[in-house]
Order: sequence, then structure tokens, then C-alpha cells
Amino acid sequence: MDESNLSNLMPGQLLARGVCRHLLSYDFVSVEELVPTPGRRVDVMALGPKGEIWIIECKSSRADFQSDHKWQEYLQWCDRYFWAVDQEFPSEILPGDTGLIMADAYDAAILRMGPEHRLAPARRKVMIQKFARHAARRAQASRDRGVARFNTSS
Amino acid sequence: MDESNLSNLMPGQLLARGVCRHLLSYDFVSVEELVPTPGRRVDVMALGPKGEIWIIECKSSRADFQSDHKWQEYLQWCDRYFWAVDQEFPSEILPGDTGLIMADAYDAAILRMGPEHRLAPARRKVMIQKFARHAARRAQASRDRGVARFNTSS
Repeated sequence: MDESNLSNLMPGQLLARGVCRHLLSYDFVSVEELVPTPGRRVDVMALGPKGEIWIIECKSSRADFQSDHKWQEYLQWCDRYFWAVDQEFPSEILPGDTGLIMADAYDAAILRMGPEHRLAPARRKVMIQKFARHAARRAQASRDRGVARFNTSS
Repeated sequence: MDESNLSNLMPGQLLARGVCRHLLSYDFVSVEELVPTPGRRVDVMALGPKGEIWIIECKSSRADFQSDHKWQEYLQWCDRYFWAVDQEFPSEILPGDTGLIMADAYDAAILRMGPEHRLAPARRKVMIQKFARHAARRAQASRDRGVARFNTSS
């Protein structure tokens, strides 16, 4: 296992790493830092085998959660919503009607499944396409370091 | 520009690199080596801003083209089909009713647009989801080298 880049990651990104790994056991693939609409950025968006979309916001501290005044907007872009926190986090302060994932940089576990509010088909189509284009840009940037100068839009 | 990994690429992969770069100028993002159905593998699949899907097969030599007896199957999975070849390739042997891209490892140019045969909506939905999941797996593998042991399916 390559740990060389762990020290470059922020606390929330370490949680995201473990979350994305664990979601593969549900056959969900994930992207990080997707922008669903200008000015908003999702920590983790996951796509299931039947087109299910989950959003997971990673909170590294009480302050990190309490300063987030926009998370409810994210409910409109997913079928299920989760928080991911570490073992030190006071999880009792999180809203009860959301999902809960316990994570570290290496793995995670779903402690409470987020309630399902299924997306309308048109919205799902838009989100899967955003997911696809975001993921492809990230994959291309990793396999071709010279591609940055060809990128004309985000 | 990082050229460190060019020597590891096969001739067809070098063409694919230039193709993927150039397609960004059309606002198309790309993945390589997607498997649309077991036993088939597409060199480049590109996804446009309106959900358009193009397939580009990269041929490094006359023999490479002449040994390909399956390319017509690929037409069912895309709106437009292209060949990508280099300047040495005898492009007159390629079918006239397909697209043509001239490429090298650094860039490409579309010489002839592939004719459009629009996918049915249900097929497009399936292909965009395959594209999304393939791209996300590749992106995750690049940002987290330790993820391989969590991968339970392709």
C-alpha cells in the first residue's frame, strides 16, 4: 500500500479516502470534490450499480460541522445523505434523520443508513452525467500530466 | 509537461493520449479501455456536454486495422464512431462512412466527423453510467494506490 501522499491530505480528505474504499464493498464508486452547482462542493459523491447517488460530507471536528450552514441543500442532489466522522467526533450532535459513517484514512463502516429520498429521473440523469464528466477529468489528469493546458473548462 | 511515462505506452495508447487531449477542445471528456460488454474493449470513449457519446478506435498500423473484425459492433454503443491513426497510416483503407482523426501522443485533429446515429435514450443512459463508473474507478485508483484490495468487481 502506498502511503506516500497521506501527509498531504487534510483531515476531511483522510476520512473521504476511507469512505471511498469502504463504499466499494457496496459496489459504489466515488468521486471527491464534485461541484453540483457553482459555489458548492460535495466531499464525496458515490454512484451505485443501479444509478443510486449518495452524498457523504466528511466532518473532522465539531467546529467543522457547526460552521456548515449549507448541507441541507445537498439533499436535493442525492438519494441518501451521510455524514462521515472519526471516532473522536461527538456524533450525538448530528441530525438523526441522516446517515452516519465512522471512518479513518484506511476504511470505514456505515453505522446508520441515510433515509432514502429517491431523485426524480431527470435530476438523476443530470447528476450521473456531472459525476461522469468530473470522474473522467480526474482520471485523465492522473494518467496524462500534460493535459492541464488542454483543459478549457472545469 | 510530464513525459516520464510515455515510454511505457503502446503505440495505440500514444494515439489515445493525443485524442483525449484534443477532444477537450470540443468539451468532450474521455476514458480509455472501457468494457461495454464482456470480451470487448473500447480504446477511447468520449462524453460530451449534452451526453453525446463518441467511440474512437486507435490503429497504429495497417495490420492492426486489418485484424480488427469486431469494430462494427461498437457502432451500437455510440452516437459517432472514429478511427484515430498517425500520419504514416494508409488512411484510404479505412471505411469512408466513419470518422477520422489524425493523432500523435501530443495532440490530434478531426479530419472527418463520424456520421451521427443517435443512441436510443435507454442505451445512452446505460452507456453514461458505464462511463461514469469506469472513470471513477480509474480516478480512485490513481489517488489511492491502496484501493486495489477493496475492489471487488471490475
